[in-house]
Amino acid sequence: MTATADPAAGGDGAGVPRRPRVVVIGAGHAGLEIARGLRREDVDVLVVDRHNYHTFQPLLYQVATAGLQPGDIAQPVRHILQRYRNVGFRLGEVVGVDLRARNLALADGTQEAYDWLVVAAGATTTFFGVPGADEFALPLKTLANAIEIRRRVLAAFEQADRARMATPGAAVPPGLTTVAVVGGGATGVETAGAFAELFDRVLVHDYPGLDFSQARVIVIEAGEGLLDAYRPHIGEYARRTLERRRVEFRFGAGVTRVDEHGVELSSGERLPAATVVWAAGVRAHPLGEILGVGVTRGGCVAVDDTLQVPGHPEVMVIGDLAGAAAPDGTLYPQVAQVAIQQGRLAARQIRRALRGLDPLPFRYRDLGNMATVGRNAAVLQTPGGRTLTGFIAWVGWLFVHVINLVGLRNRLQVMVSWLYNYLTYDRGPRLIFPPSPADGARKDPMQ
Amino acid sequence: MTATADPAAGGDGAGVPRRPRVVVIGAGHAGLEIARGLRREDVDVLVVDRHNYHTFQPLLYQVATAGLQPGDIAQPVRHILQRYRNVGFRLGEVVGVDLRARNLALADGTQEAYDWLVVAAGATTTFFGVPGADEFALPLKTLANAIEIRRRVLAAFEQADRARMATPGAAVPPGLTTVAVVGGGATGVETAGAFAELFDRVLVHDYPGLDFSQARVIVIEAGEGLLDAYRPHIGEYARRTLERRRVEFRFGAGVTRVDEHGVELSSGERLPAATVVWAAGVRAHPLGEILGVGVTRGGCVAVDDTLQVPGHPEVMVIGDLAGAAAPDGTLYPQVAQVAIQQGRLAARQIRRALRGLDPLPFRYRDLGNMATVGRNAAVLQTPGGRTLTGFIAWVGWLFVHVINLVGLRNRLQVMVSWLYNYLTYDRGPRLIFPPSPADGARKDPMQ
Repeated sequence: MTATADPAAGGDGAGVPRRPRVVVIGAGHAGLEIARGLRREDVDVLVVDRHNYHTFQPLLYQVATAGLQPGDIAQPVRHILQRYRNVGFRLGEVVGVDLRARNLALADGTQEAYDWLVVAAGATTTFFGVPGADEFALPLKTLANAIEIRRRVLAAFEQADRARMATPGAAVPPGLTTVAVVGGGATGVETAGAFAELFDRVLVHDYPGLDFSQARVIVIEAGEGLLDAYRPHIGEYARRTLERRRVEFRFGAGVTRVDEHGVELSSGERLPAATVVWAAGVRAHPLGEILGVGVTRGGCVAVDDTLQVPGHPEVMVIGDLAGAAAPDGTLYPQVAQVAIQQGRLAARQIRRALRGLDPLPFRYRDLGNMATVGRNAAVLQTPGGRTLTGFIAWVGWLFVHVINLVGLRNRLQVMVSWLYNYLTYDRGPRLIFPPSPADGARKDPMQ
Repeated sequence: MTATADPAAGGDGAGVPRRPRVVVIGAGHAGLEIARGLRREDVDVLVVDRHNYHTFQPLLYQVATAGLQPGDIAQPVRHILQRYRNVGFRLGEVVGVDLRARNLALADGTQEAYDWLVVAAGATTTFFGVPGADEFALPLKTLANAIEIRRRVLAAFEQADRARMATPGAAVPPGLTTVAVVGGGATGVETAGAFAELFDRVLVHDYPGLDFSQARVIVIEAGEGLLDAYRPHIGEYARRTLERRRVEFRFGAGVTRVDEHGVELSSGERLPAATVVWAAGVRAHPLGEILGVGVTRGGCVAVDDTLQVPGHPEVMVIGDLAGAAAPDGTLYPQVAQVAIQQGRLAARQIRRALRGLDPLPFRYRDLGNMATVGRNAAVLQTPGGRTLTGFIAWVGWLFVHVINLVGLRNRLQVMVSWLYNYLTYDRGPRLIFPPSPADGARKDPMQ
């Protein structure tokens, strides 16, 4: 497992040819494409991830709002890779990369040598240094995040109901039944729409004693409108649709502080909210800094148009962590389609190198954008700028997301859940889990 | 909310009639039956539980073995109670009962007054004082237990695979891919059968590099055979079936010690096992002792044949926590059917009291027993002692369990999962979740 200087001509000390070893960091959309693209090549591929499952991030907001179960959008990486005989998996976290020795260090103290390294570690959340945000606001990037948001909202409703019962007639502390969503992009819009429906279609029946005029969903957006990746009338449509569903807005307002009772805005307004979802501020995974090469906007790794790290052609960075520039100089957006297409190209670069061919530049084929606003309502925009809103766009959104889910089982489960939710106006299991002492129950080691 | 001495004639200080208040502790099978049985009565019912969901315990072992998702067998209590207008829910843990003042104390410091109290807090696990068992053996009574068993087994397989890769050719530490199941009753048999299938049908493909002759499932039973609640040939059938599926047995052996590497038996044998499932030793919930009245076997509360606490006709204890004796003097078994039938009677006793009628004695209608041994194999025994084994019994088992699940959504999800598992030999999401530092990943607050 020692690294060689020339991957294509790999061999060990005894001169016996050795299969080149490709290590892929991250089992997201980008990382899985590499494994698929190299499945028939004469290389050994090792995928390393901190989780033993691939998360389908576009549907995380549905787990956070109790529409789907966590396992519906997670697929074990080993299950996905089973069919590729030359691809292995390693559960662990990369804490160091020695570019000279071509070696990774993992958190458990072990090391992995590589001939090619493809870094697809993705993005994480930045709180822009807003005081209290990292402690009290909840990001929505991982399964654990989504489960914690669900738990926090439901536990706050229980607390409100407890307060109502303890002192009948008295007002429930404000904000307990409020969710503040920071960020009016696609994640913020989808999350707000799903919470509005959860409140008005489901929780209103779960908590008949609570005053649901106090159950608020508030989107806070520093810009002047929603969905700024789309044409302006699309953002307008989303805003009108959400407003009809009782979502409130604060535009042109930055968050200056988050604490356990809510948020403070740059306008001076204070919004009480037991749950603050942070759907703003994506930044590259810290692995970008660990690599010790040049970085661009938000900690992304500066790469050539071939996705290779300058000076290290055997290292590629792809997906949300890659700071690859389009021919016009702008960086590609941090979306799934870019990650998937870069994953395909990275696999192709290695296949070409094995055949002695030069790498190709990355060319992004924009397939357009889509987002749901809620039941029967979605928005869609083609690369050419054509747009569609409403029911047909919503059906299209459902279709595209079911197709892109990884695994037959997950597709079946999600379809059953969506059909059930649509027909009954009910949601999935609204579990307060794992239970926490703050929910009114002691931790009991006996059960 | 002050308690009155005579519930049937309840009223407040001003002489205005007040609806009697029934407090039910526990939202298990027994507790839910009370709510249902009182839904049309002129009483207020409050159900108190530590969790906001009802757990369908008979299928916990399928969550532990990655066959089902946690939410498939959990249903929010508020969702179940939505249709009963006079029934409320309170999330919290009861830490004290003042029988004289007719008042409960909850862990969060609040109190709840009652006119009738029905205690249905269920059972927990006892480790019989075996050294190390409470620290290292995993019970299977709650959703958190099941998820922890799943996490532990999968994390140990990852550890084994890591060890294999770190030193190729060297033997993997023994026990990493072994599950020891303590107890050969229905839970032990079902769990062992499900693990055997998980290993030989699923994980063998997830971990192609591991030696699966070392992936062992071992049932440890102090008695001489399996399923002692059934006729002897049923236990024999279960043993033969499991043996064909590579399950091993240690009969007549007690566990004398559990540590992080495995178990020690009274025979002196040491069995290395990374995961020890404790499917032996049910004991009543500690609430039985908190009541401060007489207890029987395993901490159960001694009650009259009417399920009432002697000297406190307004307090009933039902389900696994009840020490109710059959006419022949034996205590009823701690099974779902007894709990359900006692719940129905408890509701009826309150309905009768409201009409000035005397309580009735509990009469158990035994509906027989059934348990799965694995794919296409189950056992069934009627109260008359007639038995059935094999495929037909297995189909009967599936049918009975789907019917008894609470909620249409859960029934749909479980049917889809079972059909998928049966046809593909695959399982549900094998998530190592929540991730733990012991799994080789650092806790990272950023994601």
